[in-house]
Amino acid sequence: MTTAEKLGERKIIGIIREALSLPSMPIPFGDDVSGIKIGNNRVAILKIDMLVGKTDVPPTMNSWQLGRKAVVMNISDFAAKGVKPLVSLVALGVPPTFLKRDLEQLAKGLNAGAQEYGAHIIGGDTGQASSLVITCSLFGISKANPLMLRSGARSGDIVAVTGLFGKTSAGLKLLLENISAPSATRKLFLNSVLMPRARLNEGLTLSRMGAVSASIDSSDGLAWSLYEISRASGVGFVIDNLPVAPEVLEFARHKSIDPVELALYGGEEYELVLTINQRSWPKASQAVKEIGGSLIRIGRVLDRTDMILHWEGRTIQIEPRGWEHFKSGR
Amino acid sequence: MTTAEKLGERKIIGIIREALSLPSMPIPFGDDVSGIKIGNNRVAILKIDMLVGKTDVPPTMNSWQLGRKAVVMNISDFAAKGVKPLVSLVALGVPPTFLKRDLEQLAKGLNAGAQEYGAHIIGGDTGQASSLVITCSLFGISKANPLMLRSGARSGDIVAVTGLFGKTSAGLKLLLENISAPSATRKLFLNSVLMPRARLNEGLTLSRMGAVSASIDSSDGLAWSLYEISRASGVGFVIDNLPVAPEVLEFARHKSIDPVELALYGGEEYELVLTINQRSWPKASQAVKEIGGSLIRIGRVLDRTDMILHWEGRTIQIEPRGWEHFKSGR
Repeated sequence: MTTAEKLGERKIIGIIREALSLPSMPIPFGDDVSGIKIGNNRVAILKIDMLVGKTDVPPTMNSWQLGRKAVVMNISDFAAKGVKPLVSLVALGVPPTFLKRDLEQLAKGLNAGAQEYGAHIIGGDTGQASSLVITCSLFGISKANPLMLRSGARSGDIVAVTGLFGKTSAGLKLLLENISAPSATRKLFLNSVLMPRARLNEGLTLSRMGAVSASIDSSDGLAWSLYEISRASGVGFVIDNLPVAPEVLEFARHKSIDPVELALYGGEEYELVLTINQRSWPKASQAVKEIGGSLIRIGRVLDRTDMILHWEGRTIQIEPRGWEHFKSGR
Repeated sequence: MTTAEKLGERKIIGIIREALSLPSMPIPFGDDVSGIKIGNNRVAILKIDMLVGKTDVPPTMNSWQLGRKAVVMNISDFAAKGVKPLVSLVALGVPPTFLKRDLEQLAKGLNAGAQEYGAHIIGGDTGQASSLVITCSLFGISKANPLMLRSGARSGDIVAVTGLFGKTSAGLKLLLENISAPSATRKLFLNSVLMPRARLNEGLTLSRMGAVSASIDSSDGLAWSLYEISRASGVGFVIDNLPVAPEVLEFARHKSIDPVELALYGGEEYELVLTINQRSWPKASQAVKEIGGSLIRIGRVLDRTDMILHWEGRTIQIEPRGWEHFKSGR
């Protein structure tokens, strides 16, 4: 008998999709968020995201950080679509032995995560579960037309990201494999694991400009995000400026770890991965700078579905790997 | 140390509410659904509801029925507010050993539950969990003004329900305590457990008429629903026509079970519990009849917070009991 474990997350989603009678939708099934037209050229934007205590929570993360992260990872998907989150509902599955003080911290973390991005948690549900499960649903309204989908990348577009990669994977390595690092580096990496932030201002700014042809958040890893845009847009990528953080590069060299591995296949990093028309690039990059962010050009879109990385004189095939539940090995 | 188990569901919700920075809301925290104004006199209606495999699923319920129920129990809350559900997102926590064929059935059940009420599931999330957890979020738009809240019941209003009670609790007794019953009775009771339906048409019809002063669904039991309206409206009730199904009455007498217990404190029944101004009653009751439903007058609203049942010549105090997670004993 085939089990969920053997199927893996993507096939499970495929099975569910197969059973659904989908209506006509302004956002295709499987994009970062879902949408439904509500008149006056507006689209209600909806998202649900689940954080499971046993499998999704890094060691040392406290209950406040956990609550905050459950909301922030959801907001990151809104950021990728350039939609302002308004309100969130939270369903909390709580184990019987969960402590009151942890519950208080968790609730404060949930509230803090929403407040950071100008959103509010206004309701929810709770019930008993064998391990902690936090499911957040998020709601907003998009006035933007067109929406920043995964499917608009065109040959020649610039590929850009909103920040450098690898700190989270390095941090998880520190936590899970008990690797040592200088205290400043350790702090930087762990902060990236424990206190992720969503690139909401960047997403909102870019959405208003209409400069972005395709967009996704990088929660499943940079490589996986590129493959998702590739699948949805029918394009490929050449990455000639791997966005790896200098501290990660140094850490990797010191510990004989492949920095490409850390930057491409990490996951749980919440940068935006974007494609932008060359003509719009100067304005887009300037606009993001003005709000205190940065757009880093990392490569360009190809008309064939190749996935190539140029790195230190070598040409490397980017693999369709990333964080996937149910299947072991990240 | 105080644990979730000791706190119980209501106190857990209190702790979460305490931590939240609530904005101004058209629907108070803790009502059946949440809402946010979206302009043009419209309110976006949102709901999240969690069904946990281990604690919330009756024995013999198959995966299709489970998926369907997860959606229907959510729609019942929309029914109570008179709001048409439009779309739903589903977050599925799946144990590694869950079988593919069960997943297929579950997904078909989810879709069937939505389709029955004209809604669509348009997205979701999936992840690994120790036991099955189905969380549905539901979205709709209310044009009705005023909304059917829990807080509008006034002294002298008629209390009504949309159907008879006790079949579900009797069905759960059959399943959990292995009690025998004639095959037709057994079928009726089990059907009520396994195939719940939401009173959406009734809710929509009553909402359009503006006849309802307070409304709630009875998923936590009839007694509990009356107490919720009592708390929110600052009123009491005298129930002089206990809405117990005749088959339940017969079953109870035959097995020496108290029929009041089955009708008042059951839970997992999805009727609407409503208060209606006396002048609006004839029209409201007629309108529900015309769409094939029924409004059963069960008592009236008091200006003091008493909770009285007249039953077979006795006057009984209705207790604030009902289905509550985390605490044993329904």
